Amino acid sequence: MTKKNLLQLLIGFLTIVPLVAGCTSQDRPDTEADASAINDIWTEYASRLNDGDIDRWISLWTEEGVQLPPNAPPVIGKDRIRVGMKRALDQFTFNIEITNAEVEVVGNWAFSRGAFTRTDTPKEGGQPVFFDGKYMTILERQADDSWKIHRDIFNSNVASGGE
Amino acid sequence: MTKKNLLQLLIGFLTIVPLVAGCTSQDRPDTEADASAINDIWTEYASRLNDGDIDRWISLWTEEGVQLPPNAPPVIGKDRIRVGMKRALDQFTFNIEITNAEVEVVGNWAFSRGAFTRTDTPKEGGQPVFFDGKYMTILERQADDSWKIHRDIFNSNVASGGE
Repeated sequence: MTKKNLLQLLIGFLTIVPLVAGCTSQDRPDTEADASAINDIWTEYASRLNDGDIDRWISLWTEEGVQLPPNAPPVIGKDRIRVGMKRALDQFTFNIEITNAEVEVVGNWAFSRGAFTRTDTPKEGGQPVFFDGKYMTILERQADDSWKIHRDIFNSNVASGGE
Repeated sequence: MTKKNLLQLLIGFLTIVPLVAGCTSQDRPDTEADASAINDIWTEYASRLNDGDIDRWISLWTEEGVQLPPNAPPVIGKDRIRVGMKRALDQFTFNIEITNAEVEVVGNWAFSRGAFTRTDTPKEGGQPVFFDGKYMTILERQADDSWKIHRDIFNSNVASGGE
């Protein structure tokens, strides 16, 4: 191997080192963009439910999504989450507002935590039901760099909150 | 620079590359050890509550810990979490069993999800209260490589579960 070849090889390594280091999760420079994208998911989550658009709402979830609603067992898998939410949207018009408090992005994973209020108005008539709640969510980065909801748990902030 | 110097430099880089890559979160080789350490935290979490040992239980949390109990507002900071749990342990003897279902470790963060049952027996007499619940938790790796609870939310699996 000539001195010139060695030098070329060395330059190659000088190029590769930052690339290898750069692909690590914690050094990703786009954490702010990710946090912004995740906040957008909450805006869309609320809009889809308020519109009663089950198909676009369920598209926010991973296939292996798990929803952990209060006062009910875990709902495992996108298909079952869809069935459960469709049943609710068939019966109620939702008015949900989400205020995200925290996003932490680590590589292809993120957690998000915040508060929500929700008023469910029965479509067949009757008194609306009001919820004042909080949530914690795990999101997973997809192959196309979008984020989807992977785990979601929520509960009431008040003793009489119904959930 | 001589050919020998260049070769030494190259060998240096060949040594550094895997080290740099090895310090990334997703390539950590000790995910199983981390998952095992996190499972141990749940064993300890239950034991400390069942013993009524508030000081050792609270030591499982980060200083900036946030607890999200059902039917109550968020409890923010280790000091407040301690006050709330001490109040409960003063009134009740706990019998809690935790069955962790999932641990996902990403660098210095992990999430954990599972189920628990809890029987709270009033110390002043009266009927025990039974809970059948689920939880999701964010844990943070500490400087000494131990894990601590950073965010914890839980709710009931049953409509009459009381939480």
